[in-house]
Amino acid sequence: MEQILKHIDDGLEDALERLFSLLRIPSISAQPAHKADCIAAAHWARGTLEDMGFTARLSETAGLPGVIATHHAAGPGAPHVLFYGHYDVQPADPLELWHSPPFEPQLKDGRIVARGAVDDKGQVVSFLEACRAHLAVNGRLPVRLTILLEGEEECGSPSLAQLLTQERENLKADFVLVADTNMWDPETPAITTSLRGLAGAEVTLHGPARDLHSGLFGGMALNPANELVRVLGGLRDAEGVVQIPGFYDGIAAVAPALLESWGALGFSPEAFLGAVGLRHPAGEANQPPLAQLWARPTAEINGIFGGYQGDGTKTVIPAHATAKLTFRLVPGQNPTKILENFELFLRANLHPDARLEMKRFGAAPGFAMRLDAPFMRAAQTALAEEFGRPAALVGCGASIPIVEAFKTHLGLETLLAGFGLDDDCIHSPNEKFDIACFHRGTRAHARLLAAFADH
Amino acid sequence: MEQILKHIDDGLEDALERLFSLLRIPSISAQPAHKADCIAAAHWARGTLEDMGFTARLSETAGLPGVIATHHAAGPGAPHVLFYGHYDVQPADPLELWHSPPFEPQLKDGRIVARGAVDDKGQVVSFLEACRAHLAVNGRLPVRLTILLEGEEECGSPSLAQLLTQERENLKADFVLVADTNMWDPETPAITTSLRGLAGAEVTLHGPARDLHSGLFGGMALNPANELVRVLGGLRDAEGVVQIPGFYDGIAAVAPALLESWGALGFSPEAFLGAVGLRHPAGEANQPPLAQLWARPTAEINGIFGGYQGDGTKTVIPAHATAKLTFRLVPGQNPTKILENFELFLRANLHPDARLEMKRFGAAPGFAMRLDAPFMRAAQTALAEEFGRPAALVGCGASIPIVEAFKTHLGLETLLAGFGLDDDCIHSPNEKFDIACFHRGTRAHARLLAAFADH
Repeated sequence: MEQILKHIDDGLEDALERLFSLLRIPSISAQPAHKADCIAAAHWARGTLEDMGFTARLSETAGLPGVIATHHAAGPGAPHVLFYGHYDVQPADPLELWHSPPFEPQLKDGRIVARGAVDDKGQVVSFLEACRAHLAVNGRLPVRLTILLEGEEECGSPSLAQLLTQERENLKADFVLVADTNMWDPETPAITTSLRGLAGAEVTLHGPARDLHSGLFGGMALNPANELVRVLGGLRDAEGVVQIPGFYDGIAAVAPALLESWGALGFSPEAFLGAVGLRHPAGEANQPPLAQLWARPTAEINGIFGGYQGDGTKTVIPAHATAKLTFRLVPGQNPTKILENFELFLRANLHPDARLEMKRFGAAPGFAMRLDAPFMRAAQTALAEEFGRPAALVGCGASIPIVEAFKTHLGLETLLAGFGLDDDCIHSPNEKFDIACFHRGTRAHARLLAAFADH
Repeated sequence: MEQILKHIDDGLEDALERLFSLLRIPSISAQPAHKADCIAAAHWARGTLEDMGFTARLSETAGLPGVIATHHAAGPGAPHVLFYGHYDVQPADPLELWHSPPFEPQLKDGRIVARGAVDDKGQVVSFLEACRAHLAVNGRLPVRLTILLEGEEECGSPSLAQLLTQERENLKADFVLVADTNMWDPETPAITTSLRGLAGAEVTLHGPARDLHSGLFGGMALNPANELVRVLGGLRDAEGVVQIPGFYDGIAAVAPALLESWGALGFSPEAFLGAVGLRHPAGEANQPPLAQLWARPTAEINGIFGGYQGDGTKTVIPAHATAKLTFRLVPGQNPTKILENFELFLRANLHPDARLEMKRFGAAPGFAMRLDAPFMRAAQTALAEEFGRPAALVGCGASIPIVEAFKTHLGLETLLAGFGLDDDCIHSPNEKFDIACFHRGTRAHARLLAAFADH
């Protein structure tokens, strides 16, 4: 391993050159004008992987092709890793806010600056460079490795399901490794061990057949806006506890190992909320702030509307009023059941003149990594060795759709470990990747590959 | 009186002719193209009144002129009545829905059909014809009478305050008589004895500095839409009782005479609500339906909005959410105090990260006629004599701005007694006035004039 790490240290300049050659390709998947650039990036990846000794090819889809590469010299006894990354990038506008052209990568103040510097080209290349070092020193990788690079991640992965379906046999592996997330801070690596799921609903209460004059009818005629607000007003109690029956059924307590890891993070709710103009955690009062964010479900009104919205006042009883809600879900909650119970909650004490119409939107369960999986212990060992401190075990309050896709289509669990930082300006002007993060990320990936073979 | 009534009965055809000559003038105050028509209608009124022996003139305003006429032969000992009506009408469109041209009045199936047939030309002329009969038979009126006809009632009375101010000395009287309301049903006259007032507010809760991702922030960040719904959700309890502290302070119980009159009306909440697609009274559960409509205050959300309102779902925590509310008020409630207490109610248990912004809109108190006023007893007597049954004492859940204007500018109370019916299609195509209503209205007005002199 020392030889491999030295190879990485000595080759940093060359590795950055190779990354720059990829960053110069404006592979913006959302913009049809850049379709040829996207395909060029796919060919760059295929060629680079073949040069390294991989068997590589493009896998065509209805949209942009995937790149699939394999290196199975480790033999059938070795663990089989599926690495996922994406070669496409976000659009670069507004261009006038960039300090240097987005597709002319620069090294400035210890940073790689370019669109895609970290998301996800820099992270992908740091993994490829780790493979390159293993291959240079040992002539083979310590694991069987399949690489899948997607070309449409930044526009919602419209062809990912097709790709995973048509390549199911070729993507068999023990687990998926994704390098598209962040470290906890510049000194502390992180593994994202949980994601929240999602269930959505649009609720409309219909009342009178038309808008009514609030003087001539007010008091006797049901007002659907009042009624909607009344029933949804009871959605959470004063302590922030969601009042839908059975809402918390099946949720396990947060594992002590996670709580311990979170406690060591030095997380500041004041700093986190202060950045968006807030101060006080607003979730369940008896839950620690990070649990409110990562481990507890929510019931949020994302939009509400009904009646008059113009200037001044209009004395109308609206014919209907609507709220759009989403529930962030955690493992143990059944999204379908949550929406069923939500409807029962609404109907439970509705005025008889209020007619409920409810639409449901996509229901995805929450996800939690098995903390005792072998690849998990391997990752903790490798990251601790590289950074001299344990990896933070963090949650993510949002969903990462690819994780669900791998579970659904391939039956695989995903290890989320990446080396970006929160200030990398992904999706924004002046995206950057610290050279130190790229370099240590490469070293960490080299250690991860070895550790997977040992666990 | 018998002679006067016979004069009215015998002269019905001529009276209709005179009404028709006024209905042919398209005096649409909202449309500048009809300004000359409006002035022609004012001149029609002035000329008609002068021919009857009144002293009459136009009173110029920034908008359309008022018509002011006096007949004071009854002498200083007689009561002084100020009669109010308006000579302008609503626009006639959509023209294609009229079965006959709106300004070519027709007699059809016992109805006068034309724009303005009842609102308010028919009601004004029925009063003028009552005066004409008194003058024909006795050479004088039983009361001192001042007539004020407005030309801008159908476009919000923008010059009424100016008119009342500049003519204050000329409009002194004991009370105002307005013929612009309806009977209870074709056999039952009505006096409107109460109006509700109004106070309005726009409430915005501000939370985060910008819209937030509901996954990355949800649970820990305050959601202003949730918070708005939570605090407004407690505005009324399950029994429909408004929870603002002091909201009901100062409200007197409904007078037994009114309750008795309402009980005799045979009012059907099912029919009233059924016409607009509802069935169940939704106000305070312990109040009779007519009290919910006429005698009890309300708290209505007229509009609500915040966050995402498009198709599908968007996982956003909105930066702010807004509700527009109005309170219908009844006598005893102080509109300013109500809005103050509403703000206290909102602030009482607001999350510390929710910043409240509240705008206030016009505050007008409720109005209730003194049931024991002499003109009130006179009106009850006269109407009972004409119709053979007592007048219904009804409330109106809305405001009638002229009533407040007379109170504010002239210090006068208003007697609201008119002879329209609910199915007269005012403001709609095919407006009509039953000939029987016009005729009995004229007879009732003749009796009213006499009764005012006797009480």
